[in-house]
Amino acid sequence: MRARDLGIRIGSLAPGPRNAITDVAGVRVGHTTLIEGEGPLVVGKGPIRTGVTVILPHEGDPGRDPVFAGSHTLNGNGEMTGLEWVRDSGLLTTPIGLTNTHSVGVVRDALVAASVAGRPAGGLWSLPVVAETWDGYLNDVDGQHVRPEHLFAALESASADVAEGNVGGGTGMKAFGFKAGIGTASRQVGQEHGGYRVGVLVQANHGRRERLVVDGVPVGREIPREEVAGPDLTAPDAGSIIGVVATDAPLLPQQCRRLAQRAALGVARGGGGGENDSGDIFLAFATGNRSLRGEDDAEAPLTFALEMLNDDHISELFWATIEATEEAILNSMIAAETMVGRDGIAFHALPRDRLVEVMRRYGRLD
Amino acid sequence: MRARDLGIRIGSLAPGPRNAITDVAGVRVGHTTLIEGEGPLVVGKGPIRTGVTVILPHEGDPGRDPVFAGSHTLNGNGEMTGLEWVRDSGLLTTPIGLTNTHSVGVVRDALVAASVAGRPAGGLWSLPVVAETWDGYLNDVDGQHVRPEHLFAALESASADVAEGNVGGGTGMKAFGFKAGIGTASRQVGQEHGGYRVGVLVQANHGRRERLVVDGVPVGREIPREEVAGPDLTAPDAGSIIGVVATDAPLLPQQCRRLAQRAALGVARGGGGGENDSGDIFLAFATGNRSLRGEDDAEAPLTFALEMLNDDHISELFWATIEATEEAILNSMIAAETMVGRDGIAFHALPRDRLVEVMRRYGRLD
Amino acid sequence: MRARDLGIRIGSLAPGPRNAITDVAGVRVGHTTLIEGEGPLVVGKGPIRTGVTVILPHEGDPGRDPVFAGSHTLNGNGEMTGLEWVRDSGLLTTPIGLTNTHSVGVVRDALVAASVAGRPAGGLWSLPVVAETWDGYLNDVDGQHVRPEHLFAALESASADVAEGNVGGGTGMKAFGFKAGIGTASRQVGQEHGGYRVGVLVQANHGRRERLVVDGVPVGREIPREEVAGPDLTAPDAGSIIGVVATDAPLLPQQCRRLAQRAALGVARGGGGGENDSGDIFLAFATGNRSLRGEDDAEAPLTFALEMLNDDHISELFWATIEATEEAILNSMIAAETMVGRDGIAFHALPRDRLVEVMRRYGRLD
Amino acid sequence: MRARDLGIRIGSLAPGPRNAITDVAGVRVGHTTLIEGEGPLVVGKGPIRTGVTVILPHEGDPGRDPVFAGSHTLNGNGEMTGLEWVRDSGLLTTPIGLTNTHSVGVVRDALVAASVAGRPAGGLWSLPVVAETWDGYLNDVDGQHVRPEHLFAALESASADVAEGNVGGGTGMKAFGFKAGIGTASRQVGQEHGGYRVGVLVQANHGRRERLVVDGVPVGREIPREEVAGPDLTAPDAGSIIGVVATDAPLLPQQCRRLAQRAALGVARGGGGGENDSGDIFLAFATGNRSLRGEDDAEAPLTFALEMLNDDHISELFWATIEATEEAILNSMIAAETMVGRDGIAFHALPRDRLVEVMRRYGRLD
Repeated sequence: MRARDLGIRIGSLAPGPRNAITDVAGVRVGHTTLIEGEGPLVVGKGPIRTGVTVILPHEGDPGRDPVFAGSHTLNGNGEMTGLEWVRDSGLLTTPIGLTNTHSVGVVRDALVAASVAGRPAGGLWSLPVVAETWDGYLNDVDGQHVRPEHLFAALESASADVAEGNVGGGTGMKAFGFKAGIGTASRQVGQEHGGYRVGVLVQANHGRRERLVVDGVPVGREIPREEVAGPDLTAPDAGSIIGVVATDAPLLPQQCRRLAQRAALGVARGGGGGENDSGDIFLAFATGNRSLRGEDDAEAPLTFALEMLNDDHISELFWATIEATEEAILNSMIAAETMVGRDGIAFHALPRDRLVEVMRRYGRLD
Repeated sequence: MRARDLGIRIGSLAPGPRNAITDVAGVRVGHTTLIEGEGPLVVGKGPIRTGVTVILPHEGDPGRDPVFAGSHTLNGNGEMTGLEWVRDSGLLTTPIGLTNTHSVGVVRDALVAASVAGRPAGGLWSLPVVAETWDGYLNDVDGQHVRPEHLFAALESASADVAEGNVGGGTGMKAFGFKAGIGTASRQVGQEHGGYRVGVLVQANHGRRERLVVDGVPVGREIPREEVAGPDLTAPDAGSIIGVVATDAPLLPQQCRRLAQRAALGVARGGGGGENDSGDIFLAFATGNRSLRGEDDAEAPLTFALEMLNDDHISELFWATIEATEEAILNSMIAAETMVGRDGIAFHALPRDRLVEVMRRYGRLD
Repeated sequence: MRARDLGIRIGSLAPGPRNAITDVAGVRVGHTTLIEGEGPLVVGKGPIRTGVTVILPHEGDPGRDPVFAGSHTLNGNGEMTGLEWVRDSGLLTTPIGLTNTHSVGVVRDALVAASVAGRPAGGLWSLPVVAETWDGYLNDVDGQHVRPEHLFAALESASADVAEGNVGGGTGMKAFGFKAGIGTASRQVGQEHGGYRVGVLVQANHGRRERLVVDGVPVGREIPREEVAGPDLTAPDAGSIIGVVATDAPLLPQQCRRLAQRAALGVARGGGGGENDSGDIFLAFATGNRSLRGEDDAEAPLTFALEMLNDDHISELFWATIEATEEAILNSMIAAETMVGRDGIAFHALPRDRLVEVMRRYGRLD
Repeated sequence: MRARDLGIRIGSLAPGPRNAITDVAGVRVGHTTLIEGEGPLVVGKGPIRTGVTVILPHEGDPGRDPVFAGSHTLNGNGEMTGLEWVRDSGLLTTPIGLTNTHSVGVVRDALVAASVAGRPAGGLWSLPVVAETWDGYLNDVDGQHVRPEHLFAALESASADVAEGNVGGGTGMKAFGFKAGIGTASRQVGQEHGGYRVGVLVQANHGRRERLVVDGVPVGREIPREEVAGPDLTAPDAGSIIGVVATDAPLLPQQCRRLAQRAALGVARGGGGGENDSGDIFLAFATGNRSLRGEDDAEAPLTFALEMLNDDHISELFWATIEATEEAILNSMIAAETMVGRDGIAFHALPRDRLVEVMRRYGRLD
């Protein structure tokens, strides 16, 4: 069940066939979901409500065949490793991992291991991109239950089918006081602008209830905590959102960065404010240029031939990013089911019938 | 006539008494408005539809008594001078000037002259902050009609009363295909967060009609160009928005930067996308710390005593900035009157009755 | 007279044939030098010791035919206009102007006028790049004696021959307590790295005497103020250095930015520390890709075909930039003659014989 | 044995009593050094030449009592986690870990575990700062031999005594083709500038032989690879340098960032160029302001009282940083002993007698 299944249409651009980040040809997504135990929190034991999500930019090895990328931070109370090299080289050289805050390291080192496997021993280094949001309200986050094999399994399972909601890195996440997690959406720009696709995947864990906006409608005020309770949080802003933007347009690194920045505008339209306790970090990559690295054993070629989108057409991609981000966040909530975690803490699903009723009342259903 | 006079309330925080940037004590705004001639464009002759706006951070001389500041660029197709020093020192050391794109220099040099006047000759330098948007659809922008005396007059006239619409730097501006210009709004956070005020002033010249959103309502789709025409623009995205955020909270420079970044979220909520042809640049300053520079003739003191807002309270200021920015943009359109400029090009005022009607239909009037 | 004429060789790479920024094909440099009056400072009268320098990235109009560019700020107590758009678009779209601190505006607006002249009236905007250093110890900087015609004359005179020392924007500048001004140098990397050229031009006005280092030799300690006096400065650090880096390599914007950052390393090797009162700002542009904008009247093309230097070869360009910057600074001092300015203040030339003697003593002459 | 023991004095400022980063009161450094096995590389077996270094900003828990911090990247081919939050909050909230490239994750997650230990379960998150350089020429870096207990042991052992050379994270590192590793140095500015101390610690693994400069002397050309061989490296630039700057001055975050940027100038003076394969990343923190976070159980205070160094005095701290960085790098080489690692690859120690001889010949010994 997704936003469009409920008759909610965000924006004016058309989604791709899957309405997912995998509408960008070659992009694959894999999840490992860890749900185990219930009852009181015992650090190191559980309950466990977490996981790993990976995004692969194409069918090959990004270490051998990187793509251009750029990043943007709306609020930095979070982690996305690997950004210093993304900024300087403009290249994404590894799959992207998403997990919980306290397991970034294990996923990062496991991505290193996966990156160097089968390559000349001792001759390479790897600087993976791994991001996180904090699932400590439901998950024994301090127990650090993610293991390297969970990352390997997520890589292994990666495909063009993207599960949403309580899966992968999004397993224990919540947004606007509702259960949330992984969400995705896509847009395709008109042929006069190249017909490129933009796909977004979010791990949504951000937002205050009263600020939730759906397609301009103040849903959070209409379905307040008095109606659908969220737990009493020690830090009501605590949370974060990670967004990954993919496109098949031939963007240069600075153009990727500009797309990443527009993902923040999609967050804003949905009611996010980049709150102080939130780590709202975005990465955009573009598959429209490939073969940006020489073969391992050959002489390094002097130059690469590239294509660059004329900036006169980039605003359409900006809007595609904004719309797809807004919809991906919404999808992450609509797909998520109510979850009870550690110490019996529960985050409830956004009630779909009530959402539909509110949207209809505001004249916003198809 | 302002948004609240029409019954439109953006967000949930309370405005200050003036609902203007000048609700921050000491902040003053001055305008010089230049309207002259009509008919065909003759570069150097006119017609003239432009001006200068100045914002003074307090009642004194910011060269002697600077305030902390920070900036954010949503899209860089514009100019705001002085930012290299704002970024490195964290200080705003001059009044802020707003004008048209091709007159930034004259305003900048005139601010230099005003800054060094009455100071020891040859002993000082000044790095003013001057920003712009492009009024070339209505104004003979290439004629560069702004003169130093226009800046001096704007400084002279500065007060806590802020005229909106077709005034000062905003004289010839348009937004979302409607006439726009200068707009302002403010918010006050609760006493439990310090009771601080945040005021925003925009020079709005951005946006595409079909993207205009007012408090979540798709006003641009409801009042399309078929109903209220805008001219056929050579570059439909051409335009920009400059936003200045003031607060009396004791913010450090990096906190000011974060406020400036939230102004971009207010733009997004109103339908801006940071389009490629737009220069969307924001500066935030905080008057909560003063006396950040030693007296001219004295030994430079070793350190200054400061106060810093605990970041646990800063999200409220983020929301204040987002709301005030969204409302300031709306005010810039509601205050503006239809204007005919060079070559008979006209930008029409946003029809207030239609706006009210649409907002009512979407259940969004008070 | 230049460093190499004295037998001083900085670094290990070979200079281009002119050992100047104009070794990059198509780059041209023009100066207007203003020297008038003597005696006591009368603001608005003089004495005048200032000027304008322009750098054109190629033989054409960069508004129609921009080049990729990037910037770096070592210390931001200075101005370089136009950087927001350079950062976001990665493009340099105007000639670069260099002048004194208080005349940046007039040069900027004159570059606007020059940019739009002969183009469709009212249809374009221009965001020029103009930088500055402060010549107020010698020049009536507050008198703002630079006029638009001075910029036009500099553009008119631009050629591949680059005068150094007390010329153009560098007329009234000093470095390390010696008279300085404009300096330039270049390097050519080996054919195995593409044989590209890197040229640097500086307007040098920075540095403390005791910190001056020439090719590793502590020249500033060897020729102290006790031997060759500089005036008693109110702010001993006051000064700045602007550096412009040109290359014919096919660099993308982020690669240009990295080159600009290496110019700061050249400053460091010469004894600069990015002092607090210094505005040390660098811009690099690359002419290896052209035709990055469609024709005015045509449909905007969807994409551009580019070439990109493989980063495996970029370190050579980094070293070329570092070496050329260090030598350009030295050239700016060696070419400069002693100058007496306002109030009889004098900055003395670096005594060439003493420099040679010191370098020989440290075993550093050819 | 350190640079000063050989009579080499870098710069003009006086070192602190230990000439180490721990001259900043409260700063502690701990190492775990892992050396095991020899012979051919068997990934997962060894040989092992690696370790972990930690730097604690003060005697307490930086999670409860953070300090202001800022960072700078000279070249981003490396990793320093935690920087997004350092940039936005201006705070360092964990100890700093240094290790090899492929073990950043395990050290990062172990620092998380150490940070949350003894705190309310499930109520906190931690975003540690961990940086790396690549020791794969000597160490089985792909074997990922660092374990959480190695980080815990380094924390446990932290003290004001700083071992240099082949220790901790620096165990398997090399610089300019000589064996290198951990180095440190400090400076104290004059009482007229506050008498503050600046300490620097580097993990040095960067640089090409022919570029090595010691106090301006071209030592790398004087002791070439023909004399003291380094192995034939697949990527001659491969390497990196991480620098941590500590000061007891009351610096705000943007001032810390400026100090971090000056560390790059120290690298440049020693012959580093921020080469493409190098990850040259710097973090500066300042202990002059404390109590920047409320107590866990109390209401969050509204504001904090701070002190800020007047920027008129900051250039001295810039010079202190530059000098201490240059000397710390040199110390890392002088302290390091020749090491043979995987596959019998050897990096030789910089021969001290030859260094002294060269420095004397260039007139640079005390």
